[in-house]
Amino acid sequence: MSLIIDCHGHYTTAPAQHDAWRKAQLESFKCGNEAPPYPEITDDEIREPIEQNQLKLLRERGADLTIFSPRASTMAHHLGDEAVSIAWARVSNDLIARVCRLYPETFAGVCMLPQSPRAGLASSIAELHRCVEELGFVGCNLNPDPGGGHFTSPPLTDRYWYPFYEAMVELDVPAMIHVSGSCNPGLHATGAFYIAADTIAFMQLIQGDLFGNFPKLRFIIPHGGGAVPYHWGRYRGLAHMLKQPDLAGHVMNNVYFDTCVYHQPGVNLLAEVIDSKNILFGSEMVGAVRGIDPETGSYFDDTKRYVDALDIAEERRAAIFEGNARRVYPRLDAQLKERGL
Amino acid sequence: MSLIIDCHGHYTTAPAQHDAWRKAQLESFKCGNEAPPYPEITDDEIREPIEQNQLKLLRERGADLTIFSPRASTMAHHLGDEAVSIAWARVSNDLIARVCRLYPETFAGVCMLPQSPRAGLASSIAELHRCVEELGFVGCNLNPDPGGGHFTSPPLTDRYWYPFYEAMVELDVPAMIHVSGSCNPGLHATGAFYIAADTIAFMQLIQGDLFGNFPKLRFIIPHGGGAVPYHWGRYRGLAHMLKQPDLAGHVMNNVYFDTCVYHQPGVNLLAEVIDSKNILFGSEMVGAVRGIDPETGSYFDDTKRYVDALDIAEERRAAIFEGNARRVYPRLDAQLKERGL
Repeated sequence: MSLIIDCHGHYTTAPAQHDAWRKAQLESFKCGNEAPPYPEITDDEIREPIEQNQLKLLRERGADLTIFSPRASTMAHHLGDEAVSIAWARVSNDLIARVCRLYPETFAGVCMLPQSPRAGLASSIAELHRCVEELGFVGCNLNPDPGGGHFTSPPLTDRYWYPFYEAMVELDVPAMIHVSGSCNPGLHATGAFYIAADTIAFMQLIQGDLFGNFPKLRFIIPHGGGAVPYHWGRYRGLAHMLKQPDLAGHVMNNVYFDTCVYHQPGVNLLAEVIDSKNILFGSEMVGAVRGIDPETGSYFDDTKRYVDALDIAEERRAAIFEGNARRVYPRLDAQLKERGL
Repeated sequence: MSLIIDCHGHYTTAPAQHDAWRKAQLESFKCGNEAPPYPEITDDEIREPIEQNQLKLLRERGADLTIFSPRASTMAHHLGDEAVSIAWARVSNDLIARVCRLYPETFAGVCMLPQSPRAGLASSIAELHRCVEELGFVGCNLNPDPGGGHFTSPPLTDRYWYPFYEAMVELDVPAMIHVSGSCNPGLHATGAFYIAADTIAFMQLIQGDLFGNFPKLRFIIPHGGGAVPYHWGRYRGLAHMLKQPDLAGHVMNNVYFDTCVYHQPGVNLLAEVIDSKNILFGSEMVGAVRGIDPETGSYFDDTKRYVDALDIAEERRAAIFEGNARRVYPRLDAQLKERGL
């Protein structure tokens, strides 16, 4: 059997009580008060928006399963402090776990982390263990700039991050490198910050030797790898100028790009320059760009159409739709095998 | 007659005395002393590296003319203070003017500006006037993040920049939006900061209505427009979500991308999704990526080969090589007409 696995879905349609609690939590923090108790949310209140949005679109577009994480833009690690992030990550991940339990055939969980700009990573390591070991999650979203748009965190190759990478390797889960909302008036979140951060992350990996130290570490760089495939010649050339090894061995045994590129020529380029073993189908649906492209009459983020239209061997297409995701997320693969898939 | 005009060349081969003076200037600033006098540089000392590098490569590759500006990475507006930037911009632009006088058929000048993170733009306006009116320059490089990699400046649509735009319109010169060196350990200059800043700038223009206020303002976004053409669907979709007009009228009457994309598939994508009227030939030579691509046996930055290989009508290719540059840089066009070209 062949599956279509979307590696990049966020819970952009969470019940209103969830977002209202976050608002109250942040207001309480500002006033120095404790946050109110988290509200009751019924299963039906979870089902309704999921069925009207993600499930409906998955069925219409013909995908089977979404690797699902809390809404990226509202992780907002730059707000509050570490304790605020710990509480927010916990309730957000618990809600993802409920979605996955309600629709076990359709959603696999990926957690957000309780990062905070001036905090260490101990609480992120603890939350990763909890989500993987207790909730059955298959990966995490790691924010390379929890400060929210001024790029003040150490590069991903810095030893600051190593304890977290050790936990990822121990648990055998990958991270999607994904920033959150922007508190920089010059950086629009989904149009500027996301794409810039993706590009910056890749260049950090070229400059360092992270995967020499962590050969089993796996990163997904979303949004088609930012600018990287379009500037693939620049990156190959810069690696050479910096006297780094070829990207194939230096970075591309450990880094994967999704297909969240919202037009056919972009996905064509991605498939032309990047080895298909490094490409994972993803749509970021329902997410950043929700409209219909007047040039095609289809949704911008219906990226399955673009992958379907690629002039590539079926074996490569199957790798993009399923095989690579099962390889990069071995815990998902194990869950699917348990289900006989 | 048809010309090949490279819109993006930096003076990366300036005589060593020039860079030594800069070093001394910054050391003097740190100690609270006056900078030493600027050194004597003979015409021969200017000629030699230019002939061994830019002129040699221009001839080999078959281009005719380069729009030439001070080395981007050493503008370094984040170092020193405004007075330091004023002195550095002045001597750097004067050196460009000398190159243009020595090789009037081959180089047209574009100035750097004496920007400084916490300063206004009065000195930049004065230097633009001096360079255009006294030195015969045809454009300028405007740094959208003179802080050097933390994106702390107001967006390009902010009124902070308006007095400078008024000067540009008055003088009828365009600006290349070009950051400089990075003082952020997470942002490699040519691999991360440049491409991120290009992308961020474009998104700022989508969000605002700058060209409604300045219909004659013209920007070149270098390095192929950062990530923009690769994510053209995302940007068209975001404009729609933000209830902005179509990009064609909202931004693309005023914004141009160069061809500094160092592999054939990238330049193919650029020409496929971006109207040829918005593409200017550029190589950034001798610049960011100097090596030979082992996949092609040619220099990464020999972008003329990529444009030559495009499967497009000759009329479109001529626009990319010459016509668009003459339209975007009318003062260059006037100089060429004076020479009977």
